[in-house]
Amino acid sequence: MAMTGVLRPGHAQLRVLDLGEACKFYGDVLGLVETGRDAKGRVYYKAWDERDHSSVILREADRAGIDFFGFKVDSKATLDKLDRDLRDYGLTTERIPAGDLLETGERVRFQLPSGHLIELYAEKTDVGNGLPEINPGPWSAQSEHGIAPVRMDHVLLYGPNIAENKRIFTEVLGFYLVERVLMPEGTPGEAAIWLSCSIKSHDIAFVEHGEPGKLHHLSFYLDSWEKTLRAGDIMSMNNVSVDIGPTRHGITRGTTIYAWDPSGNRFETFSGGYHPYPDWKPKTWTFENLGQGLDFPQRRLHDTFLTVVT
Amino acid sequence: MAMTGVLRPGHAQLRVLDLGEACKFYGDVLGLVETGRDAKGRVYYKAWDERDHSSVILREADRAGIDFFGFKVDSKATLDKLDRDLRDYGLTTERIPAGDLLETGERVRFQLPSGHLIELYAEKTDVGNGLPEINPGPWSAQSEHGIAPVRMDHVLLYGPNIAENKRIFTEVLGFYLVERVLMPEGTPGEAAIWLSCSIKSHDIAFVEHGEPGKLHHLSFYLDSWEKTLRAGDIMSMNNVSVDIGPTRHGITRGTTIYAWDPSGNRFETFSGGYHPYPDWKPKTWTFENLGQGLDFPQRRLHDTFLTVVT
Amino acid sequence: MAMTGVLRPGHAQLRVLDLGEACKFYGDVLGLVETGRDAKGRVYYKAWDERDHSSVILREADRAGIDFFGFKVDSKATLDKLDRDLRDYGLTTERIPAGDLLETGERVRFQLPSGHLIELYAEKTDVGNGLPEINPGPWSAQSEHGIAPVRMDHVLLYGPNIAENKRIFTEVLGFYLVERVLMPEGTPGEAAIWLSCSIKSHDIAFVEHGEPGKLHHLSFYLDSWEKTLRAGDIMSMNNVSVDIGPTRHGITRGTTIYAWDPSGNRFETFSGGYHPYPDWKPKTWTFENLGQGLDFPQRRLHDTFLTVVT
Amino acid sequence: MAMTGVLRPGHAQLRVLDLGEACKFYGDVLGLVETGRDAKGRVYYKAWDERDHSSVILREADRAGIDFFGFKVDSKATLDKLDRDLRDYGLTTERIPAGDLLETGERVRFQLPSGHLIELYAEKTDVGNGLPEINPGPWSAQSEHGIAPVRMDHVLLYGPNIAENKRIFTEVLGFYLVERVLMPEGTPGEAAIWLSCSIKSHDIAFVEHGEPGKLHHLSFYLDSWEKTLRAGDIMSMNNVSVDIGPTRHGITRGTTIYAWDPSGNRFETFSGGYHPYPDWKPKTWTFENLGQGLDFPQRRLHDTFLTVVT
Repeated sequence: MAMTGVLRPGHAQLRVLDLGEACKFYGDVLGLVETGRDAKGRVYYKAWDERDHSSVILREADRAGIDFFGFKVDSKATLDKLDRDLRDYGLTTERIPAGDLLETGERVRFQLPSGHLIELYAEKTDVGNGLPEINPGPWSAQSEHGIAPVRMDHVLLYGPNIAENKRIFTEVLGFYLVERVLMPEGTPGEAAIWLSCSIKSHDIAFVEHGEPGKLHHLSFYLDSWEKTLRAGDIMSMNNVSVDIGPTRHGITRGTTIYAWDPSGNRFETFSGGYHPYPDWKPKTWTFENLGQGLDFPQRRLHDTFLTVVT
Repeated sequence: MAMTGVLRPGHAQLRVLDLGEACKFYGDVLGLVETGRDAKGRVYYKAWDERDHSSVILREADRAGIDFFGFKVDSKATLDKLDRDLRDYGLTTERIPAGDLLETGERVRFQLPSGHLIELYAEKTDVGNGLPEINPGPWSAQSEHGIAPVRMDHVLLYGPNIAENKRIFTEVLGFYLVERVLMPEGTPGEAAIWLSCSIKSHDIAFVEHGEPGKLHHLSFYLDSWEKTLRAGDIMSMNNVSVDIGPTRHGITRGTTIYAWDPSGNRFETFSGGYHPYPDWKPKTWTFENLGQGLDFPQRRLHDTFLTVVT
Repeated sequence: MAMTGVLRPGHAQLRVLDLGEACKFYGDVLGLVETGRDAKGRVYYKAWDERDHSSVILREADRAGIDFFGFKVDSKATLDKLDRDLRDYGLTTERIPAGDLLETGERVRFQLPSGHLIELYAEKTDVGNGLPEINPGPWSAQSEHGIAPVRMDHVLLYGPNIAENKRIFTEVLGFYLVERVLMPEGTPGEAAIWLSCSIKSHDIAFVEHGEPGKLHHLSFYLDSWEKTLRAGDIMSMNNVSVDIGPTRHGITRGTTIYAWDPSGNRFETFSGGYHPYPDWKPKTWTFENLGQGLDFPQRRLHDTFLTVVT
Repeated sequence: MAMTGVLRPGHAQLRVLDLGEACKFYGDVLGLVETGRDAKGRVYYKAWDERDHSSVILREADRAGIDFFGFKVDSKATLDKLDRDLRDYGLTTERIPAGDLLETGERVRFQLPSGHLIELYAEKTDVGNGLPEINPGPWSAQSEHGIAPVRMDHVLLYGPNIAENKRIFTEVLGFYLVERVLMPEGTPGEAAIWLSCSIKSHDIAFVEHGEPGKLHHLSFYLDSWEKTLRAGDIMSMNNVSVDIGPTRHGITRGTTIYAWDPSGNRFETFSGGYHPYPDWKPKTWTFENLGQGLDFPQRRLHDTFLTVVT
């Protein structure tokens, strides 16, 4: 009851071209906390205010992009139920044993029609947020080391058949549609969808795109517009390549900077956004107004938004 | 799955001593939107960004306080199920027919051990937030009329037996404990509890108190610390009596002003706060540190916090 | 002693292509307060928190741009002295009688080597800021009508011979250099200069440019980064064409949005910036780093910055 | 011309009861930068964005308070002229040789009728703000070490005969009156005055008080309301005793926290405030409205404001 089933985005495994350079970026510029390295050479990070062991896992590879994106579910029973539900729906699922990712239980993995690998899991070790459980202050020194988002927030993925993705997320996994962009006038269907399993303005989003399995951006949450300004300052001080922002999205009302990690994976520092509920009507954007949806003050559909992905 | 069962705080019916004066306050100072008046003389309001017809209902009476506090549930089926669950738990429930409150479906009402009347309902007319459903801007003129919170956020209630309240909310209604204050050293049990049915830092909270059925404050959400400053300015410009703040709560990390409506009902303008999940460990405050929990910068347990209720 | 001589930017007369459209923009979108219209058809505005009668004067004309920019000096004696000093320096000055501009005393006008007309004056009627002089609140309804800057802040002008402009402002008018951009490596001299007669990060600025008498932007001050976001929202809601931002300038550290009025005159909503003093060393930017000086997060020298003027 | 004569508050020498404890507070909690220690055992600090060598000097003593407060003037010639002017006015001045304070030139010292020692000086070594002079970023790591104000901003002093102080500051030193509080109705004169030598809402302020030479608070500037919240958090985390705030002053419109250093000297973190000019009419507060002037949201004249000084 209330918050059940799929709880939240839990982890993303990103491919980076140079692990050393990536660690410097994710650890000192983005300001995530390194929590481990595994036998395969992967490096684990969490945002400072996350409790679970890790939310970003870096793997060195020849090309950038995302290996998989995982959601935490509320229990082992839910994991089993959703595995069955996904198979009943017609998808193939795979079980990855506990321990394959550090401090993480068994995972159920399946591939979306858009080509992305999605995972569900019920267990990840609570390592705390660095504050005491008794009489905690509101933040710690970690929350000012680098950009220091409070959490990994959501992902925007590009690929084909997002209408099918939507059915899986809404009919099987319990998400609901918060906002959507229609195809250009004359073409039926949706060009983009924002989906939530909570009252966040989105936990995952998709844009219809010819090539499967693509990452548009992995997003990290900041708790104010002033911290968005600070994030932009830190990006500049560290020669991070910025794509768009700081600005406000019309879609979700959130404030944002889009930028690229050293491997070319886009990331976002996101803040604000309203809190929707599943009984609310979704908001609709016409494709012709996508510029305003993307960059509200400038009403500009920046070229890179629809073309640059990893 | 995901967001199910009890969705959110939906409505609160407040008793006010002078309806005209109260309407001036709730409409022009707090800046809620009046949405109707019923045959019993009650006046209905919603916060500008709420979609449902009403969240605050004012009733003129001889003494201030709260008549009842209602939660919206996700469906009629849930309403029926929770009604059964509450009765199975041993509580008496009452059905109030649709239409008793304007634009509101059938309600299930029960009394908490703390003496408060709580309601559940599945239906309330969606009247929109004044922005178009297609290509909406982020806000409208209504969001700058008075303090103009985005939503009614939560309530803090005072009464006896909050341990029993906690069992009902967590075991029957699907809430989880986010934070708690222990009784003074040497006394077992909890002096206060913060409960969530979402990822808000609290949807309802209780403080153990001798007298039943008391209201500590009804809270309204602002979307920034700067809007908290603006709210304080507007309170002063309108001779609103302020209790505490602007300041930060240690508990929930939210920022706050406590003040009183013209009838002496305390209200809060609340902003920020972190986003918990049901799998997180609750945070615990010792009674001796409640001052820091209430007013983090000043570490002060203001006298009025434990004594002034309606 | 202390604040003497030239006090502050006082007024700018802008040419607009369609007065009706311009008035709608300056009055309702930018949110200035209309304070008068004169026999020549000019419309006068002030920012809400300014005390003097007017700071922006609109004149309908065939092409956009700035007619003149005026500074208020501390007394009639200073006006006479600076008139003599300018003539002693070798400039020609003109006296424009009191009343030529509404509620404005005699003006001393001269032309800069860059082709711009600059004026000095000692008298302009104090019409107040709409708040009482006794026990005033911090703001009023006017401060939320449109973008509602607190003041006209500064101007950036483009033209030739800015080195000569600098001598006049620093040696005759008592300004000091706060920041400067060097010419591209290999070329001597300064490409841009920021000058202050106070502790504002700039009261006037110049960019070296082939064509004389050009306006880059007229700037209006907002008192927070959050109000900059609000300004961008209002621009979008009103289809204002935005050039750059919201972002932070490296130069002055201020936050900014550049946009165009309906006639194509660029304006800025500016906030923040540090407070320099005349005994501080100026900061220097290399031309190669001008991108960072203009748009710190993006480190981007937007094309329009050096090319679009009126 | 423009900014001449007295430029700004330059240094304050404070008496502290335990130098080690004080250094921990001023260095790590308030986050000033230690710049030297002299043969007399005094410890020198500057705020991170100040250029001159030092603005706060700590001296260990048996009782807390302020030894003297110094203003920087624009030149040696001004120093000599103001020395003559003060003597012509009837005050006794004293010359303190260069080097008595580290990296500081000759000082002219005199005593105010209120009992305070005020100093003027023209020279203090520019040690920079830790950022490069060429292509500087907007801030550095120092600006996040502790509360980290950008500058020592002003002082509020308590003592008798502030009407005489006002004459000296306005008639001899070139300051102007920005705001004032009248004596309680029925008593002539001013209870408090705010004076500026720039466009800061105040560079020094006085409250009429029976005992001479008292310090109400030394103020430090933060550049946003959000940093005021952060300052309050840091105070609480370090068990700093907070007096008032965070809140907004009606007087000056600034936002504030008043708190005490470990020796009982009150300090302020101040932000915002409007920018007055010498040709503006002063604002007047009635004594009966001083509560609103002090704490605008609460409209409360906190007891400590008029009674606790060092």
